[in-house]
Amino acid sequence: MNHVAELAGIAVALLSFAYAAWLYLWVKNQPQENKTITKVSGLIQQGARAFLNRQYKLLFMFAGAIAVLIFLVLPAPIWRSTFSKNLSMAVSYVCGTLFSAFAGKIGIEVATIANGRSAEAAQKGIKPSFMVGFRGGAVMGMAVVGACVFGVSLVYYVLRDTQAVLCFSFGASSLALFAKVGGGIFTKTADIAADLTGKVELGIPEDDPRNPAVVADNVGDNVGDVAGMGADLFDSNVASLAAALVIALKLDNASGFNNNVETVFWYAALGLLASIIGVMTARIGKHGNPTKALNSSTYVTTAIYAVLTAVVTAIFGFSWAIWASCVLGLVVGVVIGITTDYFTDDTKNPVHAVAHASATGPAFTILSGVSYGFMSALPAMVGTGVSTLISYKLCQGIDPNYSSDYALFGISMAAVGMLSIVGMIVSNDAYGPIVDNARGLAEMGELGDEVLEITDELDSAGNTVKAVTKGFSISAAGLTVIALLGTFMSEVNTAATALGLDRLTGFDVMDPLVMFGMLAGAGIPAVFSAMLMLGVDRNAQRMVEEIHRQVKADPGIIEGTSDPDYEKCIDIATTGAMKELIPAGLVAILSTILCGFLGGVRAIGGFLVGNIVSGLLLALFMSNSGGLWDNAKKYIEAGHEGGKGSDAHKAGVIGDTVGDPFKDTAGPSINTQITVVSLIASLLSTAFLTLSLFK
Amino acid sequence: MNHVAELAGIAVALLSFAYAAWLYLWVKNQPQENKTITKVSGLIQQGARAFLNRQYKLLFMFAGAIAVLIFLVLPAPIWRSTFSKNLSMAVSYVCGTLFSAFAGKIGIEVATIANGRSAEAAQKGIKPSFMVGFRGGAVMGMAVVGACVFGVSLVYYVLRDTQAVLCFSFGASSLALFAKVGGGIFTKTADIAADLTGKVELGIPEDDPRNPAVVADNVGDNVGDVAGMGADLFDSNVASLAAALVIALKLDNASGFNNNVETVFWYAALGLLASIIGVMTARIGKHGNPTKALNSSTYVTTAIYAVLTAVVTAIFGFSWAIWASCVLGLVVGVVIGITTDYFTDDTKNPVHAVAHASATGPAFTILSGVSYGFMSALPAMVGTGVSTLISYKLCQGIDPNYSSDYALFGISMAAVGMLSIVGMIVSNDAYGPIVDNARGLAEMGELGDEVLEITDELDSAGNTVKAVTKGFSISAAGLTVIALLGTFMSEVNTAATALGLDRLTGFDVMDPLVMFGMLAGAGIPAVFSAMLMLGVDRNAQRMVEEIHRQVKADPGIIEGTSDPDYEKCIDIATTGAMKELIPAGLVAILSTILCGFLGGVRAIGGFLVGNIVSGLLLALFMSNSGGLWDNAKKYIEAGHEGGKGSDAHKAGVIGDTVGDPFKDTAGPSINTQITVVSLIASLLSTAFLTLSLFK
Repeated sequence: MNHVAELAGIAVALLSFAYAAWLYLWVKNQPQENKTITKVSGLIQQGARAFLNRQYKLLFMFAGAIAVLIFLVLPAPIWRSTFSKNLSMAVSYVCGTLFSAFAGKIGIEVATIANGRSAEAAQKGIKPSFMVGFRGGAVMGMAVVGACVFGVSLVYYVLRDTQAVLCFSFGASSLALFAKVGGGIFTKTADIAADLTGKVELGIPEDDPRNPAVVADNVGDNVGDVAGMGADLFDSNVASLAAALVIALKLDNASGFNNNVETVFWYAALGLLASIIGVMTARIGKHGNPTKALNSSTYVTTAIYAVLTAVVTAIFGFSWAIWASCVLGLVVGVVIGITTDYFTDDTKNPVHAVAHASATGPAFTILSGVSYGFMSALPAMVGTGVSTLISYKLCQGIDPNYSSDYALFGISMAAVGMLSIVGMIVSNDAYGPIVDNARGLAEMGELGDEVLEITDELDSAGNTVKAVTKGFSISAAGLTVIALLGTFMSEVNTAATALGLDRLTGFDVMDPLVMFGMLAGAGIPAVFSAMLMLGVDRNAQRMVEEIHRQVKADPGIIEGTSDPDYEKCIDIATTGAMKELIPAGLVAILSTILCGFLGGVRAIGGFLVGNIVSGLLLALFMSNSGGLWDNAKKYIEAGHEGGKGSDAHKAGVIGDTVGDPFKDTAGPSINTQITVVSLIASLLSTAFLTLSLFK
Repeated sequence: MNHVAELAGIAVALLSFAYAAWLYLWVKNQPQENKTITKVSGLIQQGARAFLNRQYKLLFMFAGAIAVLIFLVLPAPIWRSTFSKNLSMAVSYVCGTLFSAFAGKIGIEVATIANGRSAEAAQKGIKPSFMVGFRGGAVMGMAVVGACVFGVSLVYYVLRDTQAVLCFSFGASSLALFAKVGGGIFTKTADIAADLTGKVELGIPEDDPRNPAVVADNVGDNVGDVAGMGADLFDSNVASLAAALVIALKLDNASGFNNNVETVFWYAALGLLASIIGVMTARIGKHGNPTKALNSSTYVTTAIYAVLTAVVTAIFGFSWAIWASCVLGLVVGVVIGITTDYFTDDTKNPVHAVAHASATGPAFTILSGVSYGFMSALPAMVGTGVSTLISYKLCQGIDPNYSSDYALFGISMAAVGMLSIVGMIVSNDAYGPIVDNARGLAEMGELGDEVLEITDELDSAGNTVKAVTKGFSISAAGLTVIALLGTFMSEVNTAATALGLDRLTGFDVMDPLVMFGMLAGAGIPAVFSAMLMLGVDRNAQRMVEEIHRQVKADPGIIEGTSDPDYEKCIDIATTGAMKELIPAGLVAILSTILCGFLGGVRAIGGFLVGNIVSGLLLALFMSNSGGLWDNAKKYIEAGHEGGKGSDAHKAGVIGDTVGDPFKDTAGPSINTQITVVSLIASLLSTAFLTLSLFK
């Protein structure tokens, strides 16, 4: 095989960086004149930078330790391996963390300059304001997917070793653990502490600059939704490519067709290209509908991707079954996003039912929200199951001698397909917090009601689109970890062959080790998310104490004559987030390692399966319930069921407070947890195979 | 094989009936003199009878239809089978419903006469009052397990056909679906409606006879906790025996050892005998501790069972590996019960933490309760996994030619062991609602503060013990359905051999049909419980309307001059419960059948696995969170975190209201749902094998 495909990946990635740079400069050149907006926006930027710096510092200590461990034991203990081989693993791992960190940094930088500019642009109408928000988000989208394709292509080009790609992916997951989980704890800590002290105790409105937590709250939107979400999708995207590459290389070496690795790289490159075109063509009419503009650019990207990959498949003679699996994954992803939207959209029955139940009292807000959240999981789970089933069946016939490997390759390519338009998805998702911040800034900068109407409309479009992308990203992570399960089995078999042991043909649930692993693994996402939610609560209590201290020490803060110490609050939320995240991360990682050394590869296979199944269920439940409660509260605030100030509204606020850590901390963090666990299992497969207590 | 073992089962069952009759008469002969108590107790009895009559009427229509279907298609379509064989299946099914219904009826009858007598006995001290409550509960315990052992022994003795035993088990599950799920909806409908109208709107205390819902509320305790819980454990117990018998008979016919069926019957008979002895020896000192009395009789029963089975094993030369699996299951069950207790006990950290969080507001009550509920699932899931693993490993060596069948037999015997002391468990569990009712009656009958102190202590012991038995019964159901999964595979293989098809060796999660089934199956318990919770809400709204109508139509009700129409409320709760239960039941049943005809036996295998894993997780989460909120509220009411009337108390009440349908409707109903689904899969295995779209 020649290296054209990886080079194509690198070329398109460089193109996306160039486009991101152009978009960044365009956003930066938009006017920002209002003094208050400039000041507050600057504070948010400083706060976000402070958070990232501290987080990255801790992360690099953690990553450094892991890199040393990797150097010592992977792909084999250093005394049985070569220096350069183990070094390349450790370096790939570090690159994975660095590339993701770089993308997150870029995203945060642009988001915190786009927010104020989007607010001011709203004075000229919805179109310019939308463009600032959208192009700001697109910088993040381009940076994330560009870094992903660039990194994977580069590592593979230089090392031609899929174990190194797995290490790169593990690096990305480590960063996601910090950025997504830590960011999720930070954002809800600040949100809850600001609400509890501001609205409840001090009786000052939301986003009031006298509240010491207000900057932390706005910073939280950016570090949770922009940097965290970017790291999460970077992680899933890299993992799907890594899973596909492991099997593709194996097939290239063994079967009669040797263009599988090429297929993976071409498809990844084209996904990024389709996203670039999608972003370039996104338009909103002068009085246009921002939701429509965002969704239609997603559909455009999907269509472009399907066409581009078909062309390349025809030119290079790739397998049409693989192409079909890939497109199927993409279509199922979009459909899952749309069905998820049903459960959180404020024009649909579930939101109305929860709002109506709220009139009876907060207990009924919770009960109905939990119920619809439970229901919302089924369509996405069946959809993930269907794409697994069909892509398997489509691809197993490619080469009858390697039918099960091709079937696994088909599943991993469905995951690659589902994640192919992730550039567009990240763009749309990062748009949300920018216009959300813009709305707050427009209020603080007193830009007038007409401007607020525009920013409200843009913000509401962001929320709607966010529901779609969230369901999409959870399902994509689900399909990716199913592909990683195949990778794990493939790695086990490679190791078993090398050791002269029996090959593993699968994970049979009637095998008691698999069943044991499955039951234990299914419990882990529940414990992990519980620890995060309790962590948010503890951390919020710390911040509340600090706010009390400040307000007591300087009465001028509430009188508005002196500035509160915003940074101290940011500092507490940051340190606390890291403190709460580490035990939860360790529980997930150590339980995997413990299960592997106790029960061996079959117990770990079961552990991964249980983890995937219960992780998907809980992630969908928590994300969707949370979104539903948020929108039910807004629906009541819009004047239904008694409107603002009614009992229904009070109940709705309680539902929303429960939903916040559900949807922004625990739910989406489960994605990262299952990916981390799957990658650890793959990387340690040889150790589990040889050193376990039970075999 | 001779029939001594089944006859031993029948003999011990008859002994338990005789003892139950003696206990019943003893309870009935206790004095009941207070007029108010006699009146209200009579109303509760009438209401419970009305509910059961209506429920049984609907059930027998449903069961009649199913019996006809069974007659037409099982074990094979009538045109390819014999009349007598198909008839015996249908009759076994009907017997399963009748035996369970009979036990439930007996239990309700005695519980509703024991409540008032226990209240009055409290005037003479804690000892006589405890004995009335405990012996009343023991009637139910003896009736449930006696009917179970009698029924299974009789069906097998007459027909010697394990398919018929599966049909008997399916009958028991059908009844449990109505009794447990319908009772669960009824009890929370009445509870919520009574609270919403009484305490909130009318401002009258709990258990006030002016509230039209008050009798329905007390009836609910009996039909949910006594009849429902009895049917649930009857169901699990029969299912565990059925699962063990299917494999035991297969092994008796094939392997060198032919005493496996004997082992099952002897062990079942001895479990019942141990429970009889345990109940007989239960004692409480004059100023004794009722919790200790209840728990120590459980430990006594466990020890007696271990000794008795060891003696029988030695005498008849049964396998010691099977004995060890059985005892292991029992010990793990008790240990799981104790760890579950940790999360709901009001002297332990979780309850204190939730009470403390409540001081910040109801959202934090919910968040912390959900978190601890999530955590509580892990120990029970790992425990279930450990007993599966160890019993498999212990038994696979019994006959090397049939190692996997003996391994499955070991798992099913661990389930039998876990459920062996179920007579004691049901006794303890039925004690709870009796003394709970007694407490209310003592208040209405104005028996004085000293009496109330005693009934409070007895009630509190009931709540503590309930937490232990609930964790126990969920885990026992989990292990039973894992055994049923083995039965399903065994049935599939029998059918496959008969049809000349390939044997199934297991359910490999890397098989896409299994994976598809698993993802779909994992979503079902969530949808099922969501439908039940929404059903409780809708049904409570109907009852609230009726209460409003009555209070408006006759002002004398609130003035206390005229009696409300209690029966109308009971009627609404009953009809509504049946109306809400049927769609949820159909979703579970039809999705299984759909999945089977689409994806065949492998998809169904996956479906069962997903169902078990997510069902266990959700059932444990909901039951334990619910218990935790209940006790956190009581802990606050006892004077902590501000005590009654404080903000923490208000938040605690909201948590408790959320927890009620969690722990009494949705959580425990999942047990029944997974058993029903497993039995349907086993019974339809031939159809799924031959008629499915995918193979």
